[in-house]
Amino acid sequence: MADAASLADVTLTAAEGGITAPAGFKSGAVHCGIKPTASALDLAVIVADATVPAAALFTTNLAQAAPIIVSRRHITATQGRARAIVVNSGCANACTGEEGLAHARMMAVTTAAEVGCPPEEVLVASTGVIGVHLKIDRVVDGIRQAARMLSAANGSTAARAIMTTDPFPKEHAVTVHTPQGSFTIGGMAKGSGMIEPNMATMLGFLTTDASVSPSMLRQALETSARDTFNAITVDGECSTNDCLFALASGASGVTIEGGSYPALLEGFLAVSRELALGIVRGGEGATKLIAVTVTNARTMQAARQVARTIANSPLVKTAVHGADPNWGRIVAAAGRSGVAFDVDHATVHVGGILLFENGLPHDHAASQAAEHLKGDTVQIDVSLGSGAESATIWTCDLTAEYVRINGEYRT
Amino acid sequence: MADAASLADVTLTAAEGGITAPAGFKSGAVHCGIKPTASALDLAVIVADATVPAAALFTTNLAQAAPIIVSRRHITATQGRARAIVVNSGCANACTGEEGLAHARMMAVTTAAEVGCPPEEVLVASTGVIGVHLKIDRVVDGIRQAARMLSAANGSTAARAIMTTDPFPKEHAVTVHTPQGSFTIGGMAKGSGMIEPNMATMLGFLTTDASVSPSMLRQALETSARDTFNAITVDGECSTNDCLFALASGASGVTIEGGSYPALLEGFLAVSRELALGIVRGGEGATKLIAVTVTNARTMQAARQVARTIANSPLVKTAVHGADPNWGRIVAAAGRSGVAFDVDHATVHVGGILLFENGLPHDHAASQAAEHLKGDTVQIDVSLGSGAESATIWTCDLTAEYVRINGEYRT
Repeated sequence: MADAASLADVTLTAAEGGITAPAGFKSGAVHCGIKPTASALDLAVIVADATVPAAALFTTNLAQAAPIIVSRRHITATQGRARAIVVNSGCANACTGEEGLAHARMMAVTTAAEVGCPPEEVLVASTGVIGVHLKIDRVVDGIRQAARMLSAANGSTAARAIMTTDPFPKEHAVTVHTPQGSFTIGGMAKGSGMIEPNMATMLGFLTTDASVSPSMLRQALETSARDTFNAITVDGECSTNDCLFALASGASGVTIEGGSYPALLEGFLAVSRELALGIVRGGEGATKLIAVTVTNARTMQAARQVARTIANSPLVKTAVHGADPNWGRIVAAAGRSGVAFDVDHATVHVGGILLFENGLPHDHAASQAAEHLKGDTVQIDVSLGSGAESATIWTCDLTAEYVRINGEYRT
Repeated sequence: MADAASLADVTLTAAEGGITAPAGFKSGAVHCGIKPTASALDLAVIVADATVPAAALFTTNLAQAAPIIVSRRHITATQGRARAIVVNSGCANACTGEEGLAHARMMAVTTAAEVGCPPEEVLVASTGVIGVHLKIDRVVDGIRQAARMLSAANGSTAARAIMTTDPFPKEHAVTVHTPQGSFTIGGMAKGSGMIEPNMATMLGFLTTDASVSPSMLRQALETSARDTFNAITVDGECSTNDCLFALASGASGVTIEGGSYPALLEGFLAVSRELALGIVRGGEGATKLIAVTVTNARTMQAARQVARTIANSPLVKTAVHGADPNWGRIVAAAGRSGVAFDVDHATVHVGGILLFENGLPHDHAASQAAEHLKGDTVQIDVSLGSGAESATIWTCDLTAEYVRINGEYRT
């Protein structure tokens, strides 16, 4: 996807921080009282120094939360420009009817008044429990507070303010060095249940100080999401509130055009991959990151479908949790994926150890594979032996802790 | 599906036993040494007094176990006739290559020699761990032993011999009373992981002493399975070994023709539903039976797809386990099912309590719904408000015990 020639002179280096690492962005975060714990941050505002190109991807779930509906209207109305993002955790503002829509609009209006822009230039996101109304008075107060503490030093508190059951905040930034100059991409994301590779799969926010047109920004966002945020799954659930926003300030002075687009994309991929893998590692109850790579498929879609079926298989996920190199469950999941292939030409490797070939087990190496499964990063490779396409889906193990978290989440 | 006029004079009464309740069938079961525990039955033979009409449904998984391949060949070769069934537990004989096929054939040949029929008149089924070879000498000895203890009194030991992680045996029988006379249908089944409504979903065996042609027997088996064995899910997994066999001895003297077919179908439905629900109740780690009924869908397939997505949702299953009437997760699962409907016209009831309507929560009744969820049988109703079709899928809750069983199953 990236032009090799264009990337020859491009290098990426890690940068400090996350969403405010690129020049031209500030954020503020507060506890406004949506979450019961007094110290728990639950609202963040991210503001660009001026109105800038923006792009957004939204959940494909038919049940769309109020902030999704409002944000889609806004980014459509502005044809891909925005000044600010306002996001709360602790309440999804989903299945909340007209009142919920009014609340989401009120979040945009309040933010717009604070930063001095039209309400349409504010994107809104919410995450938390479905079917509960926002305590809108507290949210409005919180937005005003957050907007008065805007600083480029507040990126990490914003990353904490969007967490729900996430065990740790997820932020990342890289600086992309090109012959035309350097620019930075930063981001933050939250999981950690209802994660399925079927659109933006969670809340994710990216910023860059490159100068990018709205259409090119959208292309970079969509393309990088395909192999990162849309290639992860925790539990096969696609939520009502998933969204992924990107803003480009242009403050670095580097303008992205056709020739430098691959460098932008590399940067988006690097930040998005780190955030996406963080979501999986922080998946509810997760103790292991599992990469399922399917190779030699007829089409990339077929490779993805098989990888996704394996990654969502509760039997595979529990076997990995138990460090059992149970390749039979992997073969069975692939076999029910709906993709046609010849099982006798397929192979299964776990941690690089061949376990299944020519329709037969290679169980003599199972103990080596079991050792690999005891680590916190697991690699499963399945070759379908029927083509040249491949895909990777990342997931986590299924644990008793997942059941505990989700059996006790609301009550 | 059943002609009301034809059913007016039909009554069903419970019958003792299971697979040998109908006249004309005997069985034998032994511990031959596949399972490590000395007292654990692991092999059963079911034999009809003569060669009789038979029907079979097989897994749709691309990875098909040796017994599936052999049984499909046999029932095709005989055009729907069989004399005996041989089944073992503890080893699936799946992903075992040519040697596995030879073992499955050997099971048929040995059984055929004992009962005096061509090998093609024996159907073979296996269940247990994938990718392990049968200890074929023990199995051959076991078949000989079992074939010498054939008795109509041995139905219940056969039901125990096919168990793997099943917490209890599943057998059921009914007698169907018609103006033309009475006949009996009996059956047994095993679960209890890798259960998905995508074909026969487990091992199931039905017998009847009605006289039925092979084609009508197949029709009754397929039609009844659609709303019973194919309408359950434990974990969304479809196995390599699923199969459902039916044999009809004719020993009751009652011949099933067009007019009496609805009575046969009613009997098949009654026995299959009882066995299928037993599989769900006995699902790995299950503590609750959950019926998900979707109504007012445009098509029956749409109703099934929505019901299945809800029934396989880990967030719904854990919420039910925690007695949390979290209708938001139900709406979110329906919304990602791939079926188009208007969320604002949908309703959600749990235990008959309205929780969601007009896009809004009815949380004031949530505590009543929570009380319902504390019971061992849960009813979830979702109306899509877009048509007149409906479907029910049965599932169980997702518990820490499921994780424990499947994290420790093999190692």
